[in-house]
Amino acid sequence: MKALIKITLKNGVLDPQGKAIENALGALGFVGVSGVRQGKLIELDLAAKDEASARDEVERMCQNLLANTVIENYSFELMG
Amino acid sequence: MKALIKITLKNGVLDPQGKAIENALGALGFVGVSGVRQGKLIELDLAAKDEASARDEVERMCQNLLANTVIENYSFELMG
Repeated sequence: MKALIKITLKNGVLDPQGKAIENALGALGFVGVSGVRQGKLIELDLAAKDEASARDEVERMCQNLLANTVIENYSFELMG
Repeated sequence: MKALIKITLKNGVLDPQGKAIENALGALGFVGVSGVRQGKLIELDLAAKDEASARDEVERMCQNLLANTVIENYSFELMG
C-alpha cells in the first residue's frame, strides 16, 4: 500500500523559503502571485495489508518523525 | 485562484533525503517501509481569473523556476 503524506507549515509560521520563491517569481515577471508556502511531500510503500492498520501506522510516523507538530500540519492519503 | 504544485524526483534519481527518512523510520521500529521519496509541495495564490490562464501561468512557473525538469517531475491542481 502506498502513502502520500503532505506536510505544510501552520498558518502564522514564517516561511522564508516560500517568501524567496515569491520574490523570485516576481523577478521573473509573474505578477499577482501571493501567499507562497512551501511544504514537503513524502511518498512511501507500506507492508500493511489493510487500510486501518496502514492509516494508524502513517499517523504514528507523522507524529513521531515526519512532521514537527508544533509548527507543521500533516495530512495523508493511502492508495492501492 | 489557488494552485497546489507537487514536485517529485524522477524515477531513477537518487533521493538521499528519502533514504535518510527510510532509515530513521526503521530505527524507530516501523517495519516494512520502503521506497521513501521526498518531494516538494508549493501552495500559492494567483491573480488570474480564469482557469486556462492560471494553468498556463503555473505551467510556466514550473518550467522556469519551481522544478528542475532534468531530474524532477511536477504536477499541479487549481482550486477556487
